[in-house]
Amino acid sequence: MENNCFNMTPLGPDAHNTLGTVCIFGTGDFGRSLGLRLLQAGYSVVFGSRNPQNSSLLPKGAQVLSHLEAAQTSRIIFIAVHRENYEFLSAFSQELSGKVLVDISNNLRKNQYPESNAEYLAKLLPQANVVKAFNTVSAWALQSGSLDASRQVFVCGDNCESKQMVMDSARSLGLTALDQGSLLAAKELENYPLQLFPLWRLPMYIAMGLTAAFFIYCVLTEIVYTFVTEGKDHSFMIVVSIANRVFPIVSLIMLALCYLPGVIAAILQLYNGTKYKRFPDWLDKWMLCRKQLGLVALALAFLHVLYSLVIPIRYYVSHHRYIYTVSQLKDNKSLMFDNSVAWRNDSFYSLGILGFGLYVLLGITSLPSVSNMVNWREFRFVQSKLGHITLLLCTAHTLVYDWNAFLYASRYRWYLPPANVLSLIVPCIVLVLKLILITPCVDRVITRIRQGWERKSAHAPHDTSGQPLAL
Amino acid sequence: MENNCFNMTPLGPDAHNTLGTVCIFGTGDFGRSLGLRLLQAGYSVVFGSRNPQNSSLLPKGAQVLSHLEAAQTSRIIFIAVHRENYEFLSAFSQELSGKVLVDISNNLRKNQYPESNAEYLAKLLPQANVVKAFNTVSAWALQSGSLDASRQVFVCGDNCESKQMVMDSARSLGLTALDQGSLLAAKELENYPLQLFPLWRLPMYIAMGLTAAFFIYCVLTEIVYTFVTEGKDHSFMIVVSIANRVFPIVSLIMLALCYLPGVIAAILQLYNGTKYKRFPDWLDKWMLCRKQLGLVALALAFLHVLYSLVIPIRYYVSHHRYIYTVSQLKDNKSLMFDNSVAWRNDSFYSLGILGFGLYVLLGITSLPSVSNMVNWREFRFVQSKLGHITLLLCTAHTLVYDWNAFLYASRYRWYLPPANVLSLIVPCIVLVLKLILITPCVDRVITRIRQGWERKSAHAPHDTSGQPLAL
Amino acid sequence: MENNCFNMTPLGPDAHNTLGTVCIFGTGDFGRSLGLRLLQAGYSVVFGSRNPQNSSLLPKGAQVLSHLEAAQTSRIIFIAVHRENYEFLSAFSQELSGKVLVDISNNLRKNQYPESNAEYLAKLLPQANVVKAFNTVSAWALQSGSLDASRQVFVCGDNCESKQMVMDSARSLGLTALDQGSLLAAKELENYPLQLFPLWRLPMYIAMGLTAAFFIYCVLTEIVYTFVTEGKDHSFMIVVSIANRVFPIVSLIMLALCYLPGVIAAILQLYNGTKYKRFPDWLDKWMLCRKQLGLVALALAFLHVLYSLVIPIRYYVSHHRYIYTVSQLKDNKSLMFDNSVAWRNDSFYSLGILGFGLYVLLGITSLPSVSNMVNWREFRFVQSKLGHITLLLCTAHTLVYDWNAFLYASRYRWYLPPANVLSLIVPCIVLVLKLILITPCVDRVITRIRQGWERKSAHAPHDTSGQPLAL
Repeated sequence: MENNCFNMTPLGPDAHNTLGTVCIFGTGDFGRSLGLRLLQAGYSVVFGSRNPQNSSLLPKGAQVLSHLEAAQTSRIIFIAVHRENYEFLSAFSQELSGKVLVDISNNLRKNQYPESNAEYLAKLLPQANVVKAFNTVSAWALQSGSLDASRQVFVCGDNCESKQMVMDSARSLGLTALDQGSLLAAKELENYPLQLFPLWRLPMYIAMGLTAAFFIYCVLTEIVYTFVTEGKDHSFMIVVSIANRVFPIVSLIMLALCYLPGVIAAILQLYNGTKYKRFPDWLDKWMLCRKQLGLVALALAFLHVLYSLVIPIRYYVSHHRYIYTVSQLKDNKSLMFDNSVAWRNDSFYSLGILGFGLYVLLGITSLPSVSNMVNWREFRFVQSKLGHITLLLCTAHTLVYDWNAFLYASRYRWYLPPANVLSLIVPCIVLVLKLILITPCVDRVITRIRQGWERKSAHAPHDTSGQPLAL
Repeated sequence: MENNCFNMTPLGPDAHNTLGTVCIFGTGDFGRSLGLRLLQAGYSVVFGSRNPQNSSLLPKGAQVLSHLEAAQTSRIIFIAVHRENYEFLSAFSQELSGKVLVDISNNLRKNQYPESNAEYLAKLLPQANVVKAFNTVSAWALQSGSLDASRQVFVCGDNCESKQMVMDSARSLGLTALDQGSLLAAKELENYPLQLFPLWRLPMYIAMGLTAAFFIYCVLTEIVYTFVTEGKDHSFMIVVSIANRVFPIVSLIMLALCYLPGVIAAILQLYNGTKYKRFPDWLDKWMLCRKQLGLVALALAFLHVLYSLVIPIRYYVSHHRYIYTVSQLKDNKSLMFDNSVAWRNDSFYSLGILGFGLYVLLGITSLPSVSNMVNWREFRFVQSKLGHITLLLCTAHTLVYDWNAFLYASRYRWYLPPANVLSLIVPCIVLVLKLILITPCVDRVITRIRQGWERKSAHAPHDTSGQPLAL
Repeated sequence: MENNCFNMTPLGPDAHNTLGTVCIFGTGDFGRSLGLRLLQAGYSVVFGSRNPQNSSLLPKGAQVLSHLEAAQTSRIIFIAVHRENYEFLSAFSQELSGKVLVDISNNLRKNQYPESNAEYLAKLLPQANVVKAFNTVSAWALQSGSLDASRQVFVCGDNCESKQMVMDSARSLGLTALDQGSLLAAKELENYPLQLFPLWRLPMYIAMGLTAAFFIYCVLTEIVYTFVTEGKDHSFMIVVSIANRVFPIVSLIMLALCYLPGVIAAILQLYNGTKYKRFPDWLDKWMLCRKQLGLVALALAFLHVLYSLVIPIRYYVSHHRYIYTVSQLKDNKSLMFDNSVAWRNDSFYSLGILGFGLYVLLGITSLPSVSNMVNWREFRFVQSKLGHITLLLCTAHTLVYDWNAFLYASRYRWYLPPANVLSLIVPCIVLVLKLILITPCVDRVITRIRQGWERKSAHAPHDTSGQPLAL
């Protein structure tokens, strides 16, 4: 929808309207896109190019000059050039001294060079004020004016005034500028666009690991076992039945895993008798990726729901039913209706549905735009209170399914307990611990600790602002 | 993803890079987190603490001094201290006079104190410029740099220049600063983080009330009735069948309730012959929580869908089917296929599915980030046009289900009409009224009224900007 | 949630707190709402009105004066007046000269007048500095302070300093201000709020066209055909069965259509041996609406899922099953279980479910707030890699359904191939082409081209910034 506003005809440099002149070295994608946007925002734009004549693709309204001439037109110069070509800039060290050089370059892989491109540029041109910025914004995003890719411009540099100039220009393009400190941060900024879901790695690995493990476990205890013992080939079950056994198990365990660290942290605080003791690193890391853990678990729960709902239209199932009906009719048994079975079966579904419903709610509230609108208390209410209720419902759902499986020897194939039983261990531990933690007596202590009270010194030093710590 | 950028190594105060020095009183969670972020943004940070030596947890790069020394280092001082400890500040009234004191404190419950903490601080230190800010941002959000909790910093204070300083510092941390006026607003700001979904209260109460009412109604007319009359124990039906009867009913009614106020408002405007007459308060309130009403209704519809889809895998149902088949076979009736039943049954499902589809669409467009990208006309098109179509489809869905239930005496158990019939009352009223309102003759008048025309004065005074009023 | 903060009691003009005085001409909805928000933000507000006495609805704290007096109180004046009433302003040309006049007006339809309202105003008052702004923000959004409608304020004007003043005032209201250049842009801005999902048009038309075509096709080959040949009336199938045949087909084709342009673009680049050659317009347009194409396809896939899941509770189906069982029993065949059928049937469902799961994931990541948080590489990973896998899974899902349909003459009704076969053409083409493009040899060339290499000149001129081009 945006576009109509951004793809506005470039206005050409009409003096009375310009926000000032900006120079861009390099006429590549990014240079051109940036130029277009700057023109639209009311700057007049001058490109510096080796071959000014060959400028077919440049946005109309922009001037093209030699680097030398271009450099003189403006205080601020965007370096839309590959690092390999930085050397040639040192030729203009005079003209560039005192200018604000914006290094927007990216590398092809992390830590490609010992020093960041920006620092390298700063070394080449010591008199210039190098600012690292715009490298996290894509040419495409600038061109289409779409909000589809990130609009955050991370800026760093050693000269404060230069940084401000760059941040202002970013804001005048409708982007969000974030000051990231000195040029030391350049390396981080150059690595940022190259990273691939760092916070999602761990949860994904956990998910894959658990899935693989339980998949093998189930194939063994169900497919292989039936084949060996009864000689029946149920291999086709791998595709749906086993999948629908494994996904919910992993989902439940991961849901539990994303509330476990909170419990551990609370216990640690109780043990330390203060909240001013750092948590071990592994716990901090764990707590930072709770959201991702939960969302992966939600995805698996979603698959579980779909897999369960297709059951009645599966060939295997309808065939099974048919056979069953026939056999029943043959030895015309009159099938009795068992009320308690109906109760358990229905509450099994009901618990699952309610659990999943809350689960989806949690997922929605973890959307950035939603969580930005709720205040801290509301956020914690949803993520903590509702979260634990979700865990409770899902665990109950699994318990009801076959709560007593572990009792029957027949269910132990090759002495292995049924997978569902294994899946219940972690969730139950979390729930029991949580239950203990919310008992009034324990809860009172934790609350006081979180308000800054320390066991040694009876009343808190005047050093907390009543801000809750997220657990 | 952010984090890698925010958790950047604190830079330490290297003069040439700093945005200036900022002082923080108090070394609690929030003080520390704020300090870290300020360092990362390029400020140099000085903590004021009673016991400067005990500063184990403070971000490296920050200085720790006594309050007295710290106060002198900076123009702006964040007071990360509990209200109870404000008195001690009066000791430094000299040093603090003319300084910008940022009160970031929160209370434990609404209106805990007669006057807001900020106003209390201002009274203690009349020469200082107190600004209330940052209390809506959580320590956790600052630490992790995550966008998970709100990034909006509401600022209020009596000195304009001081406010600007604080708002700039907020922006330089990548937060959104919103000026909320004079220090009178401090109380509001201090209550804000303590409120729990104020706009969701009413809709939730309505939902719970209706659910409870219809639940009892259905239990009576179905479970109890069958037990009393036929002596059959269908109690297990409570878990799924009744739930799946109640949820859709409440959902439909609430969907209707969220379009009723619009209709009422239009009628009022027609009656008043102007749009410049205020609506009664109850109507304004109602209209403000329409979105929440709709979303709660959507949640219930979602549950209804899941409950309906598990039907075929329920023990009760499959058993029922089996019994039916057997009985049919016994007295080997040849079951005739009824085309009209097929028509009604299929269109019943089709209407439901399409209705739910549109419903979900409405839900998605009401996500902040989505509704921020559509213009006013688009937003109204979706919320009003599509909304009414959704209501129409869902009502039709219910009508087709058993449109003629109310005709058969047999359906009146203990003279009570079937629940579905009751559920149709409100939606039908809304739809009929809406139908009348969109008839050309009526619509023309309303449109003119909304464009500023008033019945008394033939043509509008020059006082509207063509901005549509939301209905 | 916001509201409690915005609906704060207007503070009244207390000199020491004001950000300055702002004047508003016109006391309509928008004028009033704007006034209220400005008061809350700490401005003092003066309304200019023809009849200052009649100001019942104005926010308390605001002054009301005659236009003449009002104009003198402030440097910046919001013109909340219909274009038709602009003439009267020329009376005050003296008083208004040098003032910043903010034209916030909207029209009732696109290009209603030859020149934009703002330009018209500028012509009427040549000495004033006219700035177009705020017309994209709705009175309702300002009133309720809700984020439900767009918070973006597009600003354009010929005088830069004036523009800055207006943008600052917008920001102080917590809105996002975007500079759109000179007053030439005013027409665009005035049309913006009148447009209705421009980017969604094409995808919607495609969807409707395809749906209609395939609907007719299926009605012919299934309903009409059975009626003509067997004389059976299956008309009721239109409602669910046909719908559930058409939706997935259209969905699959559209999903393919949203990855086709990428493939074409790549081929073009290979052919041109450079990325610096513009794509034909139709391709650019196509690529800009890929996201919308994908989302429409997702919506249809969603309906397909629901339609498939209600199958077992349909009257037609259960009746069918019953008849089948009976017939089987009559000639008591003993039905054999076919392992290979089970395999195909189950993998059919499994592929569909996994495909849909990924599909939903794609949809979620295309939410603005989500895509704003991922960096460019992550965005492309999801949209390109996962996207193609989704297409692969969904195509496989359809293939497995009846991969060999086209082989059997019996399936060709009136010599027409089964619809599913037709639906597979486009997806298969896309997948095959993509497969060729990602073969190492081809891929290497494309990558080099996208990094700026051109066939003629062996090594790239120094004119690319390593920014990826979106394909």
